[in-house]
Formats: sequence, structure tokens, C-alpha cells
Amino acid sequence: MESSCLQKAVSYAREYAAGWMGQGTLAEFIPRLSEVDRDKLAVVVTDLDGREYSVGDADQRFTAQSIAKVILLATALRDNGFEHVFSRVGMEPTGDSFNSIIRLETTIDIPFNPMINAGAISVTSCIPGASPEERFSRILAYARELLCSPGLEIDKEAFESEMLTGDRNRALAYMMSSFGSVTGKVEDHLALYFKACALFVSCREISHLGAVLAGGGISPVTKKKIIDPFHAKCICSLMATCGMYNASGEFALRVGIPAKSGVGGGITGVVPGRMGIGTFSPLLDKNGNSICGIRAMECLACELDLSIYAP
Amino acid sequence: MESSCLQKAVSYAREYAAGWMGQGTLAEFIPRLSEVDRDKLAVVVTDLDGREYSVGDADQRFTAQSIAKVILLATALRDNGFEHVFSRVGMEPTGDSFNSIIRLETTIDIPFNPMINAGAISVTSCIPGASPEERFSRILAYARELLCSPGLEIDKEAFESEMLTGDRNRALAYMMSSFGSVTGKVEDHLALYFKACALFVSCREISHLGAVLAGGGISPVTKKKIIDPFHAKCICSLMATCGMYNASGEFALRVGIPAKSGVGGGITGVVPGRMGIGTFSPLLDKNGNSICGIRAMECLACELDLSIYAP
Amino acid sequence: MESSCLQKAVSYAREYAAGWMGQGTLAEFIPRLSEVDRDKLAVVVTDLDGREYSVGDADQRFTAQSIAKVILLATALRDNGFEHVFSRVGMEPTGDSFNSIIRLETTIDIPFNPMINAGAISVTSCIPGASPEERFSRILAYARELLCSPGLEIDKEAFESEMLTGDRNRALAYMMSSFGSVTGKVEDHLALYFKACALFVSCREISHLGAVLAGGGISPVTKKKIIDPFHAKCICSLMATCGMYNASGEFALRVGIPAKSGVGGGITGVVPGRMGIGTFSPLLDKNGNSICGIRAMECLACELDLSIYAP
Amino acid sequence: MESSCLQKAVSYAREYAAGWMGQGTLAEFIPRLSEVDRDKLAVVVTDLDGREYSVGDADQRFTAQSIAKVILLATALRDNGFEHVFSRVGMEPTGDSFNSIIRLETTIDIPFNPMINAGAISVTSCIPGASPEERFSRILAYARELLCSPGLEIDKEAFESEMLTGDRNRALAYMMSSFGSVTGKVEDHLALYFKACALFVSCREISHLGAVLAGGGISPVTKKKIIDPFHAKCICSLMATCGMYNASGEFALRVGIPAKSGVGGGITGVVPGRMGIGTFSPLLDKNGNSICGIRAMECLACELDLSIYAP
Repeated sequence: MESSCLQKAVSYAREYAAGWMGQGTLAEFIPRLSEVDRDKLAVVVTDLDGREYSVGDADQRFTAQSIAKVILLATALRDNGFEHVFSRVGMEPTGDSFNSIIRLETTIDIPFNPMINAGAISVTSCIPGASPEERFSRILAYARELLCSPGLEIDKEAFESEMLTGDRNRALAYMMSSFGSVTGKVEDHLALYFKACALFVSCREISHLGAVLAGGGISPVTKKKIIDPFHAKCICSLMATCGMYNASGEFALRVGIPAKSGVGGGITGVVPGRMGIGTFSPLLDKNGNSICGIRAMECLACELDLSIYAP
Repeated sequence: MESSCLQKAVSYAREYAAGWMGQGTLAEFIPRLSEVDRDKLAVVVTDLDGREYSVGDADQRFTAQSIAKVILLATALRDNGFEHVFSRVGMEPTGDSFNSIIRLETTIDIPFNPMINAGAISVTSCIPGASPEERFSRILAYARELLCSPGLEIDKEAFESEMLTGDRNRALAYMMSSFGSVTGKVEDHLALYFKACALFVSCREISHLGAVLAGGGISPVTKKKIIDPFHAKCICSLMATCGMYNASGEFALRVGIPAKSGVGGGITGVVPGRMGIGTFSPLLDKNGNSICGIRAMECLACELDLSIYAP
Repeated sequence: MESSCLQKAVSYAREYAAGWMGQGTLAEFIPRLSEVDRDKLAVVVTDLDGREYSVGDADQRFTAQSIAKVILLATALRDNGFEHVFSRVGMEPTGDSFNSIIRLETTIDIPFNPMINAGAISVTSCIPGASPEERFSRILAYARELLCSPGLEIDKEAFESEMLTGDRNRALAYMMSSFGSVTGKVEDHLALYFKACALFVSCREISHLGAVLAGGGISPVTKKKIIDPFHAKCICSLMATCGMYNASGEFALRVGIPAKSGVGGGITGVVPGRMGIGTFSPLLDKNGNSICGIRAMECLACELDLSIYAP
Repeated sequence: MESSCLQKAVSYAREYAAGWMGQGTLAEFIPRLSEVDRDKLAVVVTDLDGREYSVGDADQRFTAQSIAKVILLATALRDNGFEHVFSRVGMEPTGDSFNSIIRLETTIDIPFNPMINAGAISVTSCIPGASPEERFSRILAYARELLCSPGLEIDKEAFESEMLTGDRNRALAYMMSSFGSVTGKVEDHLALYFKACALFVSCREISHLGAVLAGGGISPVTKKKIIDPFHAKCICSLMATCGMYNASGEFALRVGIPAKSGVGGGITGVVPGRMGIGTFSPLLDKNGNSICGIRAMECLACELDLSIYAP
């Protein structure tokens, strides 16, 4: 595909998405998230040769939130392998809210999949290390590689804010601890999870993450294999079936790009064999997905024939 | 892709799958299904030019069962359009069993998606016609086109058997009627749904159905557009997220081919832009999916790089 | 207790309850019930010697609705015995709505108790007889005795109305049939159940029913033992824990009289060793209980120290 | 009732209950509870004049566990009043397990009733005080009065054991905190709750608690009103509808005495206007109720005609 064509599509997607600007709400249950600038909008495509096509606030930082679930899963798979991770968390989509505890109770032992909070906390609990600091260092180092962002840090205020207000996640974690599906110190796992959610990323960086997965685990910049190809495929399929919270099915049907959203306003998309996509815009719909981000994805999918469900 | 290569892959898939022969159980809750020959195994690929690559009992007939959900959805979309159908049924995957009624009650109005029983009954209730006979004629005529099977009929004994034993589906239908999400005569809709499930198909025919969807709605034989391309994409995405009952997520992860299984032993797979796949083998796993069928799909996906989640 | 004192309490209860007249709504989901006169209000006490203390429209007829659950349970216990009945239905209260199907699915086999719809349908299915007509004759004959109402009949229009609109009960019944906890012809059981709900009773009559239970099964009029004392105690305890739909706990706490309400506007109360109480007033609260009826019961309990939970 | 008759009934109840000795299991999820002597069995009746009729290990100490729910509710009602307490917890029975979290989630804001763990934790969170120590002092002082036990203390090892293993209760508490139905420091409330559960009581003492409630709040020993009569009635009705975990309905039906059990092996029973009953025997049935305790209650109810549901 010609560069000029891609750049045009990216620009058009931003323009199209801008039509929904101002709609939606900020994620007010995390106080820190309610301070961001509502008018930001960025779209970035990274192709498998590492070329970037960006428009808007591509380097504006925001917290990864649920996009961290992709990073945590990649880390746990690398460090523990497929069998171990999927003995702690399932693979099945669920129509429940991202923080449902009913599913935990009725399915008894393990959470449904790594893209819901309970599942991501379970995945986090697998990540090894001699101390909480060492465990987080592993995650951070890998995140820097996956996002091609050597200076990546967390937003401390967001982290502290979530530590204070994260009682629902705390409830999920203690519930899993009581079942024995999470072992070790619950508060340590939670702190680690909240830190990963507070990773302070940019739209450019999450498009890079998408491109790594689109390339089957190969970094488009360094050409190094940084995710095992089978793991990359696993992560991509879980994004496709469960990545957009309770609207995963509708997003598959209308857009058709495996993607993971975060309540920080970002969405990372994966078009296998073709490109990674990042969008950022902080106002959310009732499902917790960025309204303009979904529109930008929809527009790109349509312009560039990206749906994996169409010929 | 060379023909000889495809034929080889199909043969190898059958051989590989045969290693699981004898495992699993027949769908004993439908008496008629417990009479079939357990040792059947067929694999058929139909490419977008209509070439068929088959091995095993490719023309052995079996009841479509849940594969009919694909046909019913295609019919309802053609006759009523996207908006009408998806006002009666949702688009979201669910981790529940195919015949769950909890979801109906807690989500109040409409069933989760057209690939679970409640959703398929709701979809069926949309299909228009002056009489039950006329309504079924519409479905049958369209099914003959989609499966490239001019002589397609139903297995009357299977139909009658389900009419007698279908109390759980009856409960789902009356529940929806009480909510007002299904209107009209409940028993008529049920009879129509049971008839569609009793369509007596072959592995060759369901691979043709897969090929139509893989081609975005174009029949590989007649080259006529028989499904609207947008509808084809919708159906394919729903197969990907919810087509394999409670194992849809795992199938996406391990195989990566949008597919729909039936407790009659068939699975129809769709590889967008490339091919349709049919498998048939009657012994089922605990989720109601054909054990050898899953293995054949897995083998083909691996040999021919068919996962839509990998580059 | 002196007669004059009881008569005064009954009159005062009516006066007190009348203060809530006009509040609430009719049970509009059964069309026939929306035709009744909203301004009716009756209170009747029957003591264990058969003396009646009544005020208001004590002989106005209304449909028994859920009060029939008491009659059906008494009939099934008499005809099948304790063990058989409670192998088909549980004894535990539940906070769910009277027509919940979730409980059926998650508890797998039998409904929670005979005071919810599913439980009452299961109880009905136990009542023996060579034909539907004979089975109903048994119920009717026993109901005439229990209510001391030789001419008791059903309201045919109410029965036909429920047959047409009873799809939720139909769903419950087919669900139980699919589990095997209800056997035989589902539609026959449903018709029987709807007929019992359509019994056209008066406030005087349901106070007599209460008095029979209060006397441990002895009719206060004929002095004959018409319910086994153990069965009478069972029925009374189930009324106490589950008789007032989702407000059973609050009613126990605030009033303390074992009671069963119906959406027809009646409530039958049992004060063991002392009296039966009937109230009638058709406007209902959100739980389906008669608003003025609850107030009258509350007033009587307070005036006459009737709570079984206080010394 | 003659003293000799009561003493005889108590002795007979113990003898009868002893026939089930050795059946059941200790509450192994709390390590401390698995250390107790399985062969203990005590039955004590305290009448409204303070006379005690005891047999067996009436002064053997054991942890109150869920019997503390009665004490916590009494304390919260005394200190905060009816309206405040019942704005934080409901009044309805539920068929769910004592530690169900589903109910919390589906009913959204407040737990079903004060006799399940979530409800008791919510009740505990209402109890006022300048510090955790002061709050516990209030509870302890009142418990000493209610149990007529000036030297009552907690079993520190049991308390510490529950603090370590109480992750399910922790999950319940954090869930309520995330809903806002529990406010303040979750860990403080939990410690308080666990301390109350660890109150080291005797069978004699819990029969005194029952007698206070049976007398409408009057201590049978001091003749002082130590519970408001309306509160006493409320507590008694909640014991009747929800006091025996998932077997509350069956216990009402078969025994008919408002009662609260604890997994420590105790049961406290209330016969309004007549007596309090305590039983102790540590082996439990699958619902968490003392097997011999239930049998002793059943025998007493039968011998002395104690069911509140019979004349």
C-alpha cells in the first residue's frame, strides 16, 4: 500500500471521528482521569516496516488503563508459558461488565479471560520476581520494548488515585485468593496491577504495540522477535473476542479489527499481516470505550478494507 | 495456492483428526441423533472458484442442528434488514451455555446473539410469510442456494423428535414471548426453528456455505451475489466470537477460523478471501462440538496458515 | 378475648388501612384484574370457634391468584404426602421475584419453595387424577371445604385471560419439564394451575382458610380435622418465610403474621392458636401485595399483639 | 410449665441428639475450629424467670461465629436505631449461601439481611466509636450483658486465624465499599467483625441470649430491659426467616423455633414468651449447622410444643 494512501486514510479518519468530539464522559470513577483535556484526538498507524502515519496529538501521554492487560498478558506468557497462564485464567468471551464478580462466583475457580479485570489480576499474579519492585521492573522493561518507548514511566498520581479507589478490584482479588486461584500477597498483586494500568503511554506507542502483534511478534523497528508468534496470535484472538468490554461483539461486526481499549481513552488495534493502529481521545461511551476512537477505527477499517471477517 | 497442495492438506487433516476417532459422545438429548454411525469422518474445502477438495464421507447426510443458525440469520437479514434483526437480538458473545435462560432474564429484553438458541429463535420469529408453510419455504429455498443443494430436505424423524423433546427451547421461546421480544405464535416459531435444525445436509454442502461467506456473499459456483457483503461480514464475525458454543474463545485462540458447529456433528468454517471448510464427524465433546471436526480444522489452520489472527 | 374487643380491632384496622386507599396499582399484566373496583376494602377475622368479625366488602368476590398456592399445597400434601411433594419442590425462602427463572436454572433441579410460581406449578403437577377434569374436581372440592364455601367456582374470564397471557408461567413449566422435575403434560398442569388461581373467593372465605391453619388443621365451623396437623404447620411456616413475595422478610419483621397474598388483592393470615384473618383491597405495591391489606394486618397485629415473634 | 418437666425434656433432647454424634465435619476453613473436641454436646434452656435447665458441657467455651450476628445487630440497632441500620442492610431472606457475593452484585446496593456475612459486615460498619478499640468495647460490654457473662472475652487465636484466612469476607467488604454501602476503613470493620465472631461463649450463655429475646428484650436475670421490644421482635423474625443459613426454611418447617447457628457449633433459639435455648455440638452438616444441635432443637420443639407455626 502506498504511503500517501495510508496518510490520507489516517487524516480522513481523524476528520471523520472529530464529528463525535464532545460526546461522552470522562472515566470519573478514577479521579485522576477526570483532569485530562477532553479535546484531544490522535490517530496513528504503524506498518510492518515501522513507518508511522500520524495525525493529531500523537505524543500526548495518557494512562494505559486496560490496554495494560495486553502488556501484562504478554509478560506473563513470556515468563510462565501458555499452559501455566491459562491454568489461571480462561479464554472465553463473556457478555458481562469488565468488573463482574458474578462470573467469578458462578464459574467457581478462574476468571473468564485475561481482558476482564479479574482475569488481568490473575495474570498479574503469575508474573514472577523476588520482590514487588523486581516484578514491576520486568513488566516495565518489557512494556518499553513492546511500545518502542525507552523512557516509559508510570503516572504516579494515577497510580495512587487507583490504590485509594480500587475497592472493586480489591474485592475481585480477595475473592480469587479465597478460591485459591490467586496465591501470594493480594495487595502486592493489586499494586502491580494498578501500576501497569498507570503506564503513561502515547498514541504513537500503542500503535507500535499493535504493529508488533500484527507482525506475529516481530518489532517493526528492530525486526527482533519480541513476542513468540503463537503468543501473539493468542493475544490477538483474545482482543478480537473480548477486547472492547461489553461491546466486543458489536465492534467485531462493525469494525472487524482485533483491539483493546482503556478508560484512559486509548485503543490499540491489530490488523494481522498489515499494521498496528493507535487512537486516543478521552471521552467514553457507556461501555468505557473512546467514542472518537471507535469512529476512527471504523473509518480506517472501511477506507482500507481492514476487517478480518471480510475477503 | 496449488490444488495439489490443498488436496494434500485436506487428506492430512482427515488423517490427523482420525486419531481422535471414538472419543466423545453422541448428542443423546435428541433421540434421533443417537442413531447415527459414529465412525463417519469427512473434510471438504471449497475454494472461491468453486473447486472442491474432499476426503471421507463428504456426501453423508446429517442434521444441520446449530449450523442452521447461520442459515436462519442470513434469511432474516435478507428479508428484514440489519436494523430490524438486531433490534430483536444482540451481537455480544457470552460465556454461557447455548441454551442458557439466565441471560435472558438478567439482560431483560433480547437474547445475547444469534448463535445461541434463544437468539436463533428470536431471529426465526422475524422471518416473514403468510403461513408457517410459506415461511419455511423461504428458508428452505434460500438454504438450497446457500448450500448449493437443489434437493435439500429436512429429516422428518429428527424434526418430530425435537418437537417432542424441545421443552428447554420451548421455555426460552415463551420467556421471550412474555418479555415481548418475540411476538406472534410461539409454537409456530418453534416448529420453524426445529425444522431448520433438521435440515439434512452434507459436509460438501456446509463447506459451500462457508465458501459463500468467505467470498463476501458471492456463490463460488454461480458467481452470483447471494448474501449482501455487509451481512456476510456480520455473520462471519458472529461465528468468530460465538460460533463454537462455550469454546468459541479457545477455538479462536487455537484455530482462528470463524466457524459454526452443530450437535449433528458438522462444522462449517469461513476463511475470508480464501475458502470455506466443512467437517463432519458425529462424536461430540462436552461443549457439543465435534471432536474430530475441531482437530481437522486445527490441522488445516496450521498447515495452510489460516488463522485470521496471525499475519 | 372478648368479642367486642375483636370487632373493635377489625373496625379500627379497616379505618387505619383506608388511609392508604387510592395508592398503588392494579395487576395490569392480567387484563381481567384491571377491571375490578379499586375502592373495595374488607377485613375479616375468624376465631377458632368459627365466630366471624368482619367489616367492609366481606363477601365481594375476587380471584385467589397466589392464595391458591396454599390450597394447591394443601391438596398435594393430602394426596401425595410430605415426602413426595418435597421431592418436587424445596422449602427455602428466596429473595427473588415470584416468577424468577434464574433460580430454576442455577439450582438445577427443583424450585425453591411452593410459594413461588415455579414451585406452585411443580406442586400442581403432583396432584393426581384420571383426567384434567377429575384433577380439578379434587382441588375444587377441597378448596370448598378449606374456605367453607360450598358454592365456590372459578372466574372463567380470569382463567381464559391467564391462559392467553401466561407465557412466563409457561416458560417456567417447560423449563421444569426439560429438567424432568415436572413430568406429564405441561399444558394440562398449566391449565390446572391457572384454574386454581382463578378461584373466585371472598375475604370471609380466605379468613376461614387462615382459621383452619391457625387451628392446626381443624375447621372452626365443622370441628373436623381437614388438614393433617403436621401439614398445617408446614404450610404456615412456608407462609411465614415466603408468603409475601419479595417482602416476606419485611412483613415478618413489621407484622409477624404468617400470610399469603395474591395479586387479586387478597391476603390470608394465620395466627396459630388464635385466629385466621382475611383482607381484601385490590391496589398493589411494587411487590404485588395489597397496600391496604398490609396496613390492616399491621394494625391488627399491633392492636391485638399477634406477632409470632414477640412474647 | 413445671421445672421437672423442662429438665426432663432437656435431658431427653440431649439423649435423642446423641444418636447423631460423630456425624458431620468440623468447620475446617477456619483452622482454629478444627482443633475442638468433637464429642461435646450440651443443651440448656433458660426460662423467662431466669431458671436454667442444662445437661452436658454447658460451660464449655466455643467461638460464637455467626451467633455474633445477633449481637452485632442488637448493638447496631441500640446505637443507631432501626432506620439507619436498615438503610444499610435489607430484611429479606435469601436462599443463597451465607457468603454469597452474587446477591451483592445483582441487588446492587445493600446486602439482603443481617444474618448473612455481607449483611453482618455492613451492620458492623454502622457501630460507632472514636477508635476501633472503643467500638469493640461497646460490642463486648453489650455482649456481656446479653449473654449474662461478665467475664466474656474473645479467643485470640481464632481471631488471628480468621484475619489470615478471611479473604472471602474481605472481598465482600471491599465490594460493599466500592458500592458505597460500607463507608470508612474496610480493614477496621473486618477486624471488628472477626473479633465478634471470635467471642468465646458457652452454651449456657447463648441460651441466656435467647431468653432475653424471648422476653421481648427483658433480661430474665436482672429483669432490666436491655433490648428495645421492637428491636427484639425484629431480631427474632430475622432469625426465623434467615438464621439457619440455607436451611432456614426447612428448620422453620420441621422445628419452628427462631434460631441462629454458628459454625463454632452453637445454636441459640428463641421461643417468644416462653424460653431461650442454647445447644452446642461442633460437628456440622453441609449447611454449616450443628447436626446434634438441630436434633436437640427438634426434640425439644416436639416434646414441649414449641413451634411458633402451630397452635
